[in-house]
Amino acid sequence: MELTEAIFQRHSYRGAYADRPVPREHLRQIMEAGLAAPSGCNKQTTFLIGVDDRALLRDLLDIMDPPACATAPAAILVLTRRRIAYTDGNGVPRCYAVQDYAAAIENMLLTVTALGYASCWIEGHITDADEQGRRMAERLNVPAEYELICILPVGVPLDDMKLPRKRDFSQRACFNGWSITPF
Amino acid sequence: MELTEAIFQRHSYRGAYADRPVPREHLRQIMEAGLAAPSGCNKQTTFLIGVDDRALLRDLLDIMDPPACATAPAAILVLTRRRIAYTDGNGVPRCYAVQDYAAAIENMLLTVTALGYASCWIEGHITDADEQGRRMAERLNVPAEYELICILPVGVPLDDMKLPRKRDFSQRACFNGWSITPF
Repeated sequence: MELTEAIFQRHSYRGAYADRPVPREHLRQIMEAGLAAPSGCNKQTTFLIGVDDRALLRDLLDIMDPPACATAPAAILVLTRRRIAYTDGNGVPRCYAVQDYAAAIENMLLTVTALGYASCWIEGHITDADEQGRRMAERLNVPAEYELICILPVGVPLDDMKLPRKRDFSQRACFNGWSITPF
Repeated sequence: MELTEAIFQRHSYRGAYADRPVPREHLRQIMEAGLAAPSGCNKQTTFLIGVDDRALLRDLLDIMDPPACATAPAAILVLTRRRIAYTDGNGVPRCYAVQDYAAAIENMLLTVTALGYASCWIEGHITDADEQGRRMAERLNVPAEYELICILPVGVPLDDMKLPRKRDFSQRACFNGWSITPF
């Protein structure tokens, strides 16, 4: 698929998935796209676990409360290791781990779209107060220095996409000086 | 350009740029790709200023110390408004502004690549202790609640890309449980 088509077709999908497995080579292709994203000072702070074992995936999805993407046939779990990239002029340590994993996730969502699947960036749901991500990480035997921050379901969507309302270009962008209409 | 080609061809470029203008419609196409990225709870916290006025661009680049992308014929400045997406179960306000702008930047870098240009994600350089981004924002009359966090130069590269060494797939990814070789 053309890049532009993937960028504008990508949307968060929260509906049901078809009961159809995702071939391992597709999952790997999506993950390789994620790992090709840039990272601050090339620290490569993002790590991925693909899950296509149905029993394991069931265990992980059962941790989610309220349930989400319960019918997904596969998923990619995104982990971060918050390494310091460098220390700035005021002695403040700078870490770009969030930027790193967000760029990786966007590459994966675009590749999911290009392969004809749907997904949704599920982060807050598992990183909020009740730490569902930490329990998923324990189930996967993830070492303590890696933090599980996102689950991306992967599968063939059964429903239509619901498109969010987006602001006009002129409300978010301008040229050669500030002239954006605030919202 | 195909999505996969753009993802694997994209690299940070720190060399000189050709003295060739970037048509406004290309700049706008890149910015629209950025605004099409997802945002946490659809808060649309990312804002963009395209700069193709040479005198203004000169003023902005002159703020950068040490200099960077000094020969770029155009640039896109990325701004964020750190709005709270929601408050979690422990009463902690959650904000996804960093994730939002990082996904937008990745979409723009891919589109830059597809159009035959080069760029580089310049963030720490202008957000560190000496606050060069804040001075750029003042030059552009940006209101105080918007933070200028990144400059993306855009132009035709004159030099070859220098490719960073990236870890193997098995050092950053695995399937169905933790089996990554740490580095």
